[in-house]
Formats: sequence, C-alpha cells, structure tokens
Amino acid sequence: MITKNQVKYINSLKSNKFRKKHNEFIVEGVKLVDEILNSSFEITSLFVTKNRIEENENNLPENIEITEINDKELKNISGLTTPNEVFAIVKIPKNSINTDTIFNDLVLVLDKIRDPGNLGTIIRTADWFGIKNIICSSDTVDLYNPKVVQATMGSIARVNVHYTDLKKFLKDTPENIPVYGTFLEGENFYTCKLPKNAIIVIGNESNGISEEIAGLINHKIFIPPFSSKQTAESLNASIATALVCSEFRRIR
Amino acid sequence: MITKNQVKYINSLKSNKFRKKHNEFIVEGVKLVDEILNSSFEITSLFVTKNRIEENENNLPENIEITEINDKELKNISGLTTPNEVFAIVKIPKNSINTDTIFNDLVLVLDKIRDPGNLGTIIRTADWFGIKNIICSSDTVDLYNPKVVQATMGSIARVNVHYTDLKKFLKDTPENIPVYGTFLEGENFYTCKLPKNAIIVIGNESNGISEEIAGLINHKIFIPPFSSKQTAESLNASIATALVCSEFRRIR
Repeated sequence: MITKNQVKYINSLKSNKFRKKHNEFIVEGVKLVDEILNSSFEITSLFVTKNRIEENENNLPENIEITEINDKELKNISGLTTPNEVFAIVKIPKNSINTDTIFNDLVLVLDKIRDPGNLGTIIRTADWFGIKNIICSSDTVDLYNPKVVQATMGSIARVNVHYTDLKKFLKDTPENIPVYGTFLEGENFYTCKLPKNAIIVIGNESNGISEEIAGLINHKIFIPPFSSKQTAESLNASIATALVCSEFRRIR
Repeated sequence: MITKNQVKYINSLKSNKFRKKHNEFIVEGVKLVDEILNSSFEITSLFVTKNRIEENENNLPENIEITEINDKELKNISGLTTPNEVFAIVKIPKNSINTDTIFNDLVLVLDKIRDPGNLGTIIRTADWFGIKNIICSSDTVDLYNPKVVQATMGSIARVNVHYTDLKKFLKDTPENIPVYGTFLEGENFYTCKLPKNAIIVIGNESNGISEEIAGLINHKIFIPPFSSKQTAESLNASIATALVCSEFRRIR
C-alpha cells in the first residue's frame, strides 16, 4: 500500500525542480528497474505489484524495502500508457568527468538537445556503439526526466552523462584530440578518414550546433542525402548521431 | 474567428476513428503546412494567426479559404507545446501501390511499428535516403496521427506510405527481389554485399519482426554492437532503419 504522501512525493519527481531538490528520480517497468538493480545506482524505494511479488517470491532484491501496490495505485504514479509492474525511486549519483581517461576513446558532446526522446535514444545508441561518455551543455534536457530515462531502455545504467559548460570543456580539451561536428555542409562522412578517438559534437534539433561551439570544431563533417533532388531538409538529431557513431566504429 | 463546431471537428480528427470517417487529417506549423501547400495534398481549411497574415500579405496561398485566428484559438486546437501560427485540415489522398515500378528501387517494409515518433522519423529518414515507398502492416500506427505527421517534418509530402497485408505483399513480390530483414543474429551488415534494389523489413519496437514475416525474409542481417561486453540489448527501430538505409545507399 502506497501512502498519499508517497504519491505526492513521486509526482513531484516528475519535475526537474524537485528532482534537484530531493536528489532522486523515478524509474519504471520490469526491464529498466532490473538494469538499475544490476548497476551502481542506489534504489531507495521499490514498489511492486502483488502479482509480480508472488511470481518472483524467491527472486526479489534483498536489502531494499519493497512496498506492495495494486494496479490502481501503480496507475496513479505511472507515467506510462501501460504501467509495468515495478516502480523505483533512485538516488541521483554524483557524477564527474575524468579528463585523464575519457579522451582515449570517442566522446559524444550534445549541444542543447531538447527532446527527451532524442536524449534517451542517443544514450541507448551510444551504449550500443560502446561510447562510455556523453558531455551535455547545461541547457540540454535533464537526464533524469522520466521520458529520457524510459527512452534509454536501461542504457542510463552504463553510459556516463555529464552536464557542463561546453565552451569551457572544448577549450580545455587537449590539442591533439580532434573535434568533429555534423553540419549541413562539410566533408562527406562516408569518405573521410575518421580517427579512433575524437570528440563528436551533435547540435540542437532545430538550430544545429550553436555558433560559439561551431568555432571550436576543427573537423566539419556532413551526412549526404542520397539524391540532389528535394529531400528532407535534415535528419533527426538521434538519427544523425547513430549514423556518425556507426561510421566512426565501423573501421575498427 | 473559429467556430465551436470547427474546434469540435478538428479535435475529432486527433482520433483515427474520425480521420477514417471524415477522410481528413490535421497539419500544424509554418514549415509543415508549407510543405503540404507545395505538394499534391489538398488543403480544405487553413487557419492562420492575424500576425502571420499581416506579415505575409502578398504571399498567402490562393484558392484556399483562410480563417484568421488569434493565439488563444490556435492554442485551443493545437497539439503542440508551442503552437506555430498556421493550422490546416487536409484531405487524406487515395493511395495505391504500383507494383510495376516500386521494385526498381529500395522499398521499406514496416512490420507493426507502434510509436508515432518512430514512424514519423522513419519517413523523414527514408526521404533523406531517397526511398520513395514504405509498405506498412495494417497494424502499424496510422500515418495521419498528428504525432506521426509532425515527426515527418514534411517528408510525408514526398514519401508514399501504404498499408496492406504484409504477408500477402511479400508472397506476391517477384522472386528476383531480395527481402532483407534486421535480426539480433544474421550476417554483419557492414561486410555483406548489398544490392541496389531490395525490400528491407523493419520489425516492431518490442518484438522485432513477427514470425510469419520472418519466414518470408531470405537475407537476415545484423547490426553488430561495438563490443562483446554488455551493451544496449537492441537499437531503437528508427535508428536501426537509418543505419540499414545508409549502408544500402553508401555503395552507390
């Protein structure tokens, strides 16, 4: 049974303001909560339907207090169209950038990604392509927004996502690390030689890479459309990210 | 000024049932409505803010009745977080598959794509890669769902999307047309030789390609993750589509 105060608290965590205040976020659904349980994240409360508790009697996590809830209660706190048996409150971890090691591999840099679905999908895609670090501008959508968490499909447990002043971050990057960015003009990314370690900058959904960041990019690349006839004006930001990551990784 | 009945009618078009009944759908925002105006779609009503009418006095479409609306009225009918000046009611066109010509190029086949954002993004991506025809299973999310239309970013005006019985469609496909599908096992798509024309089947977000369709696929391909260590279990459906389309097109 869930209390009125718990429902109120959980609903407050749907807003960035209260996530920052309480330093916690919410995770929903069997698969995602499983990924969180198997990660270094710390779950502070776990709500599970009676049905699922009965079916998994010998397989419930230890050292975490489990509150049994019914379908109606779950529906009350869930942000999903089809609520899915488990619901967790999770501590937001302290996160820092280790600039000694991150430049030994690809690093994704996101310049003002605003759509939660895009950020989540980018994290999931980075995970697929073995990219461990994503650096976001301070005005990128919040990682702990429930829609972002959901779209990561669990990859939030494996990819480090940091928020910082991008301009400062890029200025402090060692000179020998090439900084790539996707533009609507630039070198054809299918034919240019791509290095093993680099920074890849992805721009905002509507406006692309901002001017002050563009000035810090030394390799402008371009995903060419198939035809010179009229096509889509641009690609979705998460699609562009995937195509570029794939191209950087295929040569290994 | 918009009437109460118009508001009621427009809101009804947000559901599939009433779109089918009235054979019309809605399109929002300056860019998207512009794409529709420059296409073969037929706009039956156009609602434009006073501000925009004044700014574009010499550049308004002819032969279409324009209703001036204020911001509050636009907000009332809009499905966008930030309503964007124009709103159109558009006729759903009659659509048929020309099996004489479609197999001369790549054809995308969608087996039960359920997320509106994914379908819209797939259409936008297909447009970028010059793919003109998409065949959807009858249970794929409706093309005229406002979220799909929005996510196409205008590519709905250039890509033909048909709904049909996929099993029958694939059985009737000429034998010399190879049918590719993405699976979690199969041939590494980076290294296999891909033809110029083919059918590419993309599966449902949670369950992949259904069993009865899988049996009709003669080339199983696989997008390999970068590492054999634990990564994301799968890619988002629109991301997988983009990676495969890019790989088919890069060899030209």
